[in-house]
Amino acid sequence: MKMFNKAVIIGTGLIGGSIGLALRKQHLAGQVIGLSRQAKNARLAKKVGAIDQVGSSLEAVADADLVILATPVNTIIDLGLGIVKKIKKGCIVIDVGSTKERIVSKLSVLIPNFLGCHPLAGSEKKGIANLEDNIFKGSICIITPTIKTSRRTLNKVKLLWKKLGAKIVILSAKKHDQALAFTSHLPHAVAFSLMNSIPNSCLGLSSSGLSDTTRISGSDAGLWSEIFLSNRINLLADLSIFQAKLSALKFALESKNKRRLRKILLLARKKREKLG
Amino acid sequence: MKMFNKAVIIGTGLIGGSIGLALRKQHLAGQVIGLSRQAKNARLAKKVGAIDQVGSSLEAVADADLVILATPVNTIIDLGLGIVKKIKKGCIVIDVGSTKERIVSKLSVLIPNFLGCHPLAGSEKKGIANLEDNIFKGSICIITPTIKTSRRTLNKVKLLWKKLGAKIVILSAKKHDQALAFTSHLPHAVAFSLMNSIPNSCLGLSSSGLSDTTRISGSDAGLWSEIFLSNRINLLADLSIFQAKLSALKFALESKNKRRLRKILLLARKKREKLG
Repeated sequence: MKMFNKAVIIGTGLIGGSIGLALRKQHLAGQVIGLSRQAKNARLAKKVGAIDQVGSSLEAVADADLVILATPVNTIIDLGLGIVKKIKKGCIVIDVGSTKERIVSKLSVLIPNFLGCHPLAGSEKKGIANLEDNIFKGSICIITPTIKTSRRTLNKVKLLWKKLGAKIVILSAKKHDQALAFTSHLPHAVAFSLMNSIPNSCLGLSSSGLSDTTRISGSDAGLWSEIFLSNRINLLADLSIFQAKLSALKFALESKNKRRLRKILLLARKKREKLG
Repeated sequence: MKMFNKAVIIGTGLIGGSIGLALRKQHLAGQVIGLSRQAKNARLAKKVGAIDQVGSSLEAVADADLVILATPVNTIIDLGLGIVKKIKKGCIVIDVGSTKERIVSKLSVLIPNFLGCHPLAGSEKKGIANLEDNIFKGSICIITPTIKTSRRTLNKVKLLWKKLGAKIVILSAKKHDQALAFTSHLPHAVAFSLMNSIPNSCLGLSSSGLSDTTRISGSDAGLWSEIFLSNRINLLADLSIFQAKLSALKFALESKNKRRLRKILLLARKKREKLG
């Protein structure tokens, strides 16, 4: 039996499209409808097999039993507001936004079977053109239920992500945003700033070190300025922590304190080993 | 005809060992002798085919026509001083240290056929155990001649690196250190500081973004504190530039200036595209 009769994906970019592809390949949904603000994106999603059909309007959610909000983080709340009166009773609605607190606090009140999700997958390359076979396999998906989340919704969404190959971590939306500020938003802010520090004339004199350290600075500027703003307070706090760590290294170098410098580097190395 | 009758590699780590392996595989030297402070490293280098023979002392350089100084950056000058009276006339001596100004200014005065080199290859994993087939293929090797460098020495060393598969860039030692402060030492300082900012409890909630951005923070603390100290003035200047770029991003976020934030991110993205 299919998990869902009809799934509607709103936002057929890299993440939305990848979910569609996995739903179709694993026959988890009877029908997968894709909606995109830009019609050509949804048409492309159909062409690559990520959806069965291009939806013409938000009315497509009417008889869906799963709706996936996969648009940029700043548009998800409005989209949720837009579908709340259109969906049928029992329809599960999830989002896949990179920050959760604001979205979950709004939408979990309005939509009975809403559940915030954040698959830690994807890449600096956005768009369905960068679709890979299964970007969720072996990845982590953070699910952020509230006290209002029903057991049925939670179990069904957990099963969905498990079938997509993700390992599930349950966190409150608040804890999610605190953690992701450290592990995703801070590294992005650092990578963008590092890239902006390198003179053009030096770009040719580099190797994999610079390339890897700045890979995520190739991320979409519009998407990421919205992600930063949606987790502003946490990110500002973490930027201050990073600035202090950087100042400590700089001070050790300034004062030629070899022992201190080595200790700072060794601490980082040992922590990097834990990251695997 | 072999390019060299006898090559002596002092320091049989990842870079020294990789040069040895390439020299032997391509029959560029009649004999490759390896020396290491830790005898087991040189024995391991022999075992993996990176050298023909383990040398027992610095006297091994006596009849060499190529000596490669491949030890940590802070030991290269003393090593050069140690061999200057032992080498025969015409012996070419190169080093592969990550900073060049201090080493080149000292050793090019003392050793007639000295030439500073910096192959931009290797990885955060040091040691001969991480030997790969040819880490120089397609990489850049920066060569830093002085006005005293003879055409014969320059041409022979250029040919050597070409045969190892590297693309050659000629720079003054000073320009080298200025450029590498930006493209290598600053990214390392940033990666170490970023890693030190992430709480242990969050390490499991990350994906490839954090992993790539901090890969080089797994580098050896001893080696890298010496590299930082050997390019201290340039790196301190670049750290200040980076701090200013980071502050600009932070200020845009603090003041919720979406337009400014997006512009900063877009600038980085466009520069990252040039890096390829």
